[in-house]
Amino acid sequence: MSYSTQMEAARQGILTEQMKVVAAKEQIAPEKLMQLLAQGQVIIPCNRLHTALQPNGIGASLRTKINVNLGVSRDCQDLDMEYQKVKAAVEMGAEAIMDLSSSGDTRAFRRRLTAECPAMIGTVPIYDAVVYYHKPLRQITAQEWLDIVRMHAEDGVDFMTIHCGMNRETAARFKRNKRLMNIVSRGGSIMFAWMEMTGEENPFYAHYDEILEIFRAYDITMSLGDACRPGCLADATDSVQISELVTLGELTKRAWDKDVQVMVEGPGHMPMHQIAANMEIQKTLCHGAPFYVLGPLVTDIAPGYDHITSAIGGAIAAANGASFLCYVTPAEHLRLPNAADVKEGIVAARIAAHAADLAKGIPGAADWDYQMSTARKNLDWEKMFALSLDPDKARRYRAEAQPEKEDTCSMCGNFCAVKNTNRILDGEIVSIFDE
Amino acid sequence: MSYSTQMEAARQGILTEQMKVVAAKEQIAPEKLMQLLAQGQVIIPCNRLHTALQPNGIGASLRTKINVNLGVSRDCQDLDMEYQKVKAAVEMGAEAIMDLSSSGDTRAFRRRLTAECPAMIGTVPIYDAVVYYHKPLRQITAQEWLDIVRMHAEDGVDFMTIHCGMNRETAARFKRNKRLMNIVSRGGSIMFAWMEMTGEENPFYAHYDEILEIFRAYDITMSLGDACRPGCLADATDSVQISELVTLGELTKRAWDKDVQVMVEGPGHMPMHQIAANMEIQKTLCHGAPFYVLGPLVTDIAPGYDHITSAIGGAIAAANGASFLCYVTPAEHLRLPNAADVKEGIVAARIAAHAADLAKGIPGAADWDYQMSTARKNLDWEKMFALSLDPDKARRYRAEAQPEKEDTCSMCGNFCAVKNTNRILDGEIVSIFDE
Repeated sequence: MSYSTQMEAARQGILTEQMKVVAAKEQIAPEKLMQLLAQGQVIIPCNRLHTALQPNGIGASLRTKINVNLGVSRDCQDLDMEYQKVKAAVEMGAEAIMDLSSSGDTRAFRRRLTAECPAMIGTVPIYDAVVYYHKPLRQITAQEWLDIVRMHAEDGVDFMTIHCGMNRETAARFKRNKRLMNIVSRGGSIMFAWMEMTGEENPFYAHYDEILEIFRAYDITMSLGDACRPGCLADATDSVQISELVTLGELTKRAWDKDVQVMVEGPGHMPMHQIAANMEIQKTLCHGAPFYVLGPLVTDIAPGYDHITSAIGGAIAAANGASFLCYVTPAEHLRLPNAADVKEGIVAARIAAHAADLAKGIPGAADWDYQMSTARKNLDWEKMFALSLDPDKARRYRAEAQPEKEDTCSMCGNFCAVKNTNRILDGEIVSIFDE
Repeated sequence: MSYSTQMEAARQGILTEQMKVVAAKEQIAPEKLMQLLAQGQVIIPCNRLHTALQPNGIGASLRTKINVNLGVSRDCQDLDMEYQKVKAAVEMGAEAIMDLSSSGDTRAFRRRLTAECPAMIGTVPIYDAVVYYHKPLRQITAQEWLDIVRMHAEDGVDFMTIHCGMNRETAARFKRNKRLMNIVSRGGSIMFAWMEMTGEENPFYAHYDEILEIFRAYDITMSLGDACRPGCLADATDSVQISELVTLGELTKRAWDKDVQVMVEGPGHMPMHQIAANMEIQKTLCHGAPFYVLGPLVTDIAPGYDHITSAIGGAIAAANGASFLCYVTPAEHLRLPNAADVKEGIVAARIAAHAADLAKGIPGAADWDYQMSTARKNLDWEKMFALSLDPDKARRYRAEAQPEKEDTCSMCGNFCAVKNTNRILDGEIVSIFDE
């Protein structure tokens, strides 16, 4: 091949197989897609060793994508069982799986993902380094941190969260500017702790060019981690968050200089009225790189329902420019999610993504709703189920409460506005009781 | 008393007991509240016969309120059982209960509500007329429709949905302008059917002044029903919806001329990007009367999850000016909700309302989130549970998955960013594994 990354190919005017697949899926002209890739406004994360991948694009003009976090953990070290969860998540519509494995044989699981899973695979090398070396944190060397990145690259990972924005300057600003929730990013807090204990610069920042070379060689997408994302409404859009974003914008340009694809991770917890402004600020500071949001959760007070608080924030973020939503489950802030939580989280994220796509006018998005409402107007229940985001739940709900008449539901029965209006417009008599 | 309604009292400069209660709850100056009431920007629905009422205000500058639909039906004719649902809903934070009873002894249930329930009570006389007279729809006379309104007034109802916007002019425009879902308002469809079958004008429109006299006598709030609210995204903000809103704006002024309090009902199904514009249009056309939204649902394709589609739309609507959210449950479009559905719907509506209050800067709203995040930072689980919107679920979720360490949760365990950052800032060593 005469190019290293999709970005380099686009810049050279080469239409890759991945671009063709994505352009067809997105109902976008291949030339337009290529232009967006060349400018960094769209990414196609695709490690050349991830042969099972069915590529997807993320970014401007494309359908909003969702990510699901899974992985082996202290609670579930059974690789097969965890892989079944991954398969289920992909079937439910997740375009990406982030493997946050934090216990056991993390490498075997990661390799299984890139050997078998058609969704793009992301990882956070910081977590895995802590598991892999299994020694006191401060004894991990700068070289060892980087070795983990290289290992993940060889394992076929499509994108990695690299917490290089948490450098000594960011750490100093964080300590100067008091926040309520401090650091809530797992990787960010580990790197902050490591820097505080060793006195050294963040190796991901210090050796950023070396990481870019690795990423370029495999075509891995850089996901710039937001170590200082706000962990509560009171910290949202503060100086610590925004100044880290300034650094991430600089790192974006450095990656693009080497044709490395980039996305930027975002908040977090954030009141509704700040979300659109954050999307605008990200666009300018990070030069339009795709924005990957973790929420945002629009209130702190609903543990057990953070799939809803984040669906509200995610929908607003995506409608205002974010391209990629990390799912949040009802278990957020409380425990590791179980299978039911994962499903709830995926459905909520897909609702947010689709609602935003309708608002953004993404080609084809409104057709789905039009078909559903046509089925609804015709009281065609089988078609409504088939078109539902979760056909099983829709079918079960209706089956659990028998309606008076087969064509209505138990909510309104003979009062059904749809049925009665259809009949009147057809010149029939509507009497509600005497039929 | 020297005044009929709260609006008249406010216009005369009389500070009523209800105003004092509401002003204290809302952290607003009584004089400011009185001014908003006089201008129709705020309402305090309070039938003088509803002696159990603990009054609440709805409108500009006040906390967003939520309504829960309940009532005896073919499926549940047990008055005690249904009343227990009402009590539970009020305990979960519903400020209003709409009694949509459609079967059995509806009057006994309604009277029980106004005798015992501290929440404001709303009804839709059209539904009850159909049940009460139990005869072919077209045989109900204009006088009989009005008699039901009078009966509800005497029973102590605080606000009634009156579908007077569905007049002959609106019906003609609806027939001229094709829509996908036609009419999805139950009351609106019944009135449309009645007009089509009898050839008569909508009696609620023809005798609007007579209804206003009744409302004035008891201080009932007029809730102007939106018969033509969009029932799918394709019909949103169409000529039929907007022209009915024009009529509702005219009817608002006529009510205010008689010192009758008014709110205006709104959409419905609506894509996210149209919601803010709809709130603005409503403000001008209806002169700032409080807006009571039924959703809006931001996509049609998620039956089983419409508490989430409407939480997204409701939050955006309320942040942009709506004052009152009707809850939507996961059972919407599928069946009558059961007790679990009602709870899910209430929680989702409260999340939407609170998220909007944070965005609107309602006094005191942010304190709750600040307290929660302070507890979270301190890893004070008991306090987090106590501050949760649903303490039982939060407690249960955590209890179901034992963490490695008592102060963390099973999501991150020793990787807990909050704990590790707290420790580093306290000068401790963070090692994750060697402790």
